[in-house]
Amino acid sequence: MSQIGVTGLAVMGANLARNIARNGVPIAVHNRTASKTKDFMDEFSGEGDFTGTETLQEFVEALERPRRIIVMVKAGAPVDGVIADLEPLLDKDDIIIDAGNSHYVDTRRREEELTAKGLRFIGSGVSGGEEGALNGPSIMPGGPREAYGEVEEIFTTIAAQVDGSPCCAYIGPDGAGHYVKMVHNGIEYADMQLIAEAYDLLRHGIGLDVPAIKAIFDDWNRGDLESFLIEITATVLDKVDAETGKPLIDVIVDQAEQKGTGRWTAQDALELGVPLTGITEAVFARSLSALRDQRRDASGVLAGPKPGGLPESLVDDIRAALYASKVVAYAQGFEQMAAAAKTYNWDLKMGELAKIWRGGCIIRARFLNRITESYDAHPDLVNLLMAPYFQDAVASAQDAWRKVIVSAVEQGVAVPAFSSSLAYYDGYRRERGPANLIQGQRDFFGAHTYRRVDKDGSFHTRWSQDGTEVRTD
Amino acid sequence: MSQIGVTGLAVMGANLARNIARNGVPIAVHNRTASKTKDFMDEFSGEGDFTGTETLQEFVEALERPRRIIVMVKAGAPVDGVIADLEPLLDKDDIIIDAGNSHYVDTRRREEELTAKGLRFIGSGVSGGEEGALNGPSIMPGGPREAYGEVEEIFTTIAAQVDGSPCCAYIGPDGAGHYVKMVHNGIEYADMQLIAEAYDLLRHGIGLDVPAIKAIFDDWNRGDLESFLIEITATVLDKVDAETGKPLIDVIVDQAEQKGTGRWTAQDALELGVPLTGITEAVFARSLSALRDQRRDASGVLAGPKPGGLPESLVDDIRAALYASKVVAYAQGFEQMAAAAKTYNWDLKMGELAKIWRGGCIIRARFLNRITESYDAHPDLVNLLMAPYFQDAVASAQDAWRKVIVSAVEQGVAVPAFSSSLAYYDGYRRERGPANLIQGQRDFFGAHTYRRVDKDGSFHTRWSQDGTEVRTD
Repeated sequence: MSQIGVTGLAVMGANLARNIARNGVPIAVHNRTASKTKDFMDEFSGEGDFTGTETLQEFVEALERPRRIIVMVKAGAPVDGVIADLEPLLDKDDIIIDAGNSHYVDTRRREEELTAKGLRFIGSGVSGGEEGALNGPSIMPGGPREAYGEVEEIFTTIAAQVDGSPCCAYIGPDGAGHYVKMVHNGIEYADMQLIAEAYDLLRHGIGLDVPAIKAIFDDWNRGDLESFLIEITATVLDKVDAETGKPLIDVIVDQAEQKGTGRWTAQDALELGVPLTGITEAVFARSLSALRDQRRDASGVLAGPKPGGLPESLVDDIRAALYASKVVAYAQGFEQMAAAAKTYNWDLKMGELAKIWRGGCIIRARFLNRITESYDAHPDLVNLLMAPYFQDAVASAQDAWRKVIVSAVEQGVAVPAFSSSLAYYDGYRRERGPANLIQGQRDFFGAHTYRRVDKDGSFHTRWSQDGTEVRTD
Repeated sequence: MSQIGVTGLAVMGANLARNIARNGVPIAVHNRTASKTKDFMDEFSGEGDFTGTETLQEFVEALERPRRIIVMVKAGAPVDGVIADLEPLLDKDDIIIDAGNSHYVDTRRREEELTAKGLRFIGSGVSGGEEGALNGPSIMPGGPREAYGEVEEIFTTIAAQVDGSPCCAYIGPDGAGHYVKMVHNGIEYADMQLIAEAYDLLRHGIGLDVPAIKAIFDDWNRGDLESFLIEITATVLDKVDAETGKPLIDVIVDQAEQKGTGRWTAQDALELGVPLTGITEAVFARSLSALRDQRRDASGVLAGPKPGGLPESLVDDIRAALYASKVVAYAQGFEQMAAAAKTYNWDLKMGELAKIWRGGCIIRARFLNRITESYDAHPDLVNLLMAPYFQDAVASAQDAWRKVIVSAVEQGVAVPAFSSSLAYYDGYRRERGPANLIQGQRDFFGAHTYRRVDKDGSFHTRWSQDGTEVRTD
């Protein structure tokens, strides 16, 4: 009998199955189109103890009980389809694990529905792409704690390992795992946008050539910014296009696509009322990049400075700006997770989340150790910016951060994520901001009331009547 | 018999009913709590030909056929509740008009459900608050064209009138009216945030006192910025608190609340892939303002410059920055409406929308004439920024715009909406941005492919294998 099964053998599912088998776990595999299973078995059956199955019935019969079934299909209707097909074939307490990028709202619904039917459901984020799935991803499982207990050994074994710890930990009930994975992806959007803004300033603000910029990213990868994304930026910049002999980067169209998790993160932050500016600007920057024809037409028409001529001494300031903006993006993402935990009653362990992101996943970075340490030292930390380490890091980066944004604004280089991160920082450290004016306006035109700094209660000024103030609560 | 009815006699419904009656239209009024109807009749029945009704049955019987019933209750479940109560009492072709701030998705659903039952449904945005409802709002009706024909005369009569034109026009089928009203509200958020940022710089950057700033807004209201919101800003700033003798603005708590339409606008822009940065930053700024305790704690701890000492000569630059940012916020809002029109098959008349916002509503402004003129001259205008008038306006404002943002960044005054608007402008006028790097990263870690500038097709570099490029489509 197989200890676990995977249905859905596109590259992510196939690689996850191979990872499990390579770790000595007997595994059954299945795919809706049976020929794909055959191809998989032809190519990989030598890697471990696989049982290839043609029908769902066969697949289910090949598994020990309680069954553990990983579903790795496209998020949305396909997941519901597979669950509906599996359900009649399963027995009480069998466990379905959705390891795709499902929206946490769907996961909450599915968990509730399947629990009512006596089945157990785990919604698990799996990060790291194809490469991570095969060699060790970061895994974020959510669902009933005891159900997780039944897959814990396999999951912690196949996960990436950093400093002897697996990059896998129980996140929380129902949608918690997919929620955390969603925010992880949102942070990834911000990270990538910030790197793109830094590259843009190095390339067009200072005017460095691609090999010089590649060397700078290599250098940055030896310091605080050390991370997978900085590392692969250097790799991408290093690539020469075989056809034209140009750097490949100059051949790639400047339109960034998106698959939805960044957008979901931003939409949910709006729902929760969390000011998630960095990630959201990153999502919008991708949308703006998609308007290529409009940008081409506008470039000849809309006035503005031409970038160029910034001094090379700005390179280190750009590094500092990137780091400070990154701290803000993470602070916002963690604030969103804290707000979600409150809303959905999840006991999220913030330090633990940073810890399991240190390996396997796209945003893996040295920097995450600082986050874990900060939450370990201050478990009630309200905002990452308030942790002593990050206070100091941003304090020492901020002159450079401001200088870089000033240069970008003067040069006409768009740095939406740098700017919005700084605006958040300056807004956050402001005891009294200008929103009193907005409340005054709202009271004027909509009688929406305001509060006073000197006493409790809600108040309304009878602007259009006698101008007196009345208490409304 | 009454020609029309209003159910829901809270202040918006009551004022709308009074507006209709004052225009000589016999009207039936109803409220779930009958005592409210009685109070209404006691106070206002002298203003026109009102029929007060105690039950829905009575209400419905008081109306000529086809019945025209305006529902003015809280958005969400209450609207569905009233519709469910009304439905069994109505006859074929009767018209229900939801005049509240419903989400357009609900409006689309309700229109479909009621149409299937032989009723007609109009979802209508009504802007202008209590004051507008009474004396002439801006009205944005959506639903079947012929159903609108049955209320057109009443609606255009009670609407605000500007230069002899009513601020009411048929918007489009199903949810179009509520959609446009939603974006209107989103733009209102941006407008208010931009004014707050300008105020903040005048007050704390330059160090002007409240009366001086009041005078500046009065002055601005005589130029391009002339608008209701600039006008009431001066009024709010002029108000002295009777209790403390201080300017009222200094007594109001700096937390701006929100009721949801701004958030919906931003969430929907994310859904449509429209880079709606200005409005979204305004929504997030309100969320940040709500974190008052956190801001107080952070203000003593997080490092940064203290604002102050900017020259008075910056006043006019701030005006220019406000104007240019406002143009961007409107350009983005109109782009969102254009994208929604494409998605939902609405034939929105952009120039017409600007025209009916010139009176009655919160964002009424001289500036809207320029938008109408731009769309009249160029019906296929892709982005408002490309209209010659706005090209020139922003071109002549942009040096000042950049100068103001530079000052704010250096001073540590948060200007998220100014900054994001400029970043959008600079991103939009960029023929080639840095998103090619993001596509390169995505291809590296997720095999998401990229396109090439020199030929059609999708491509993937086999980064971790032999490094060759393969065509994938």
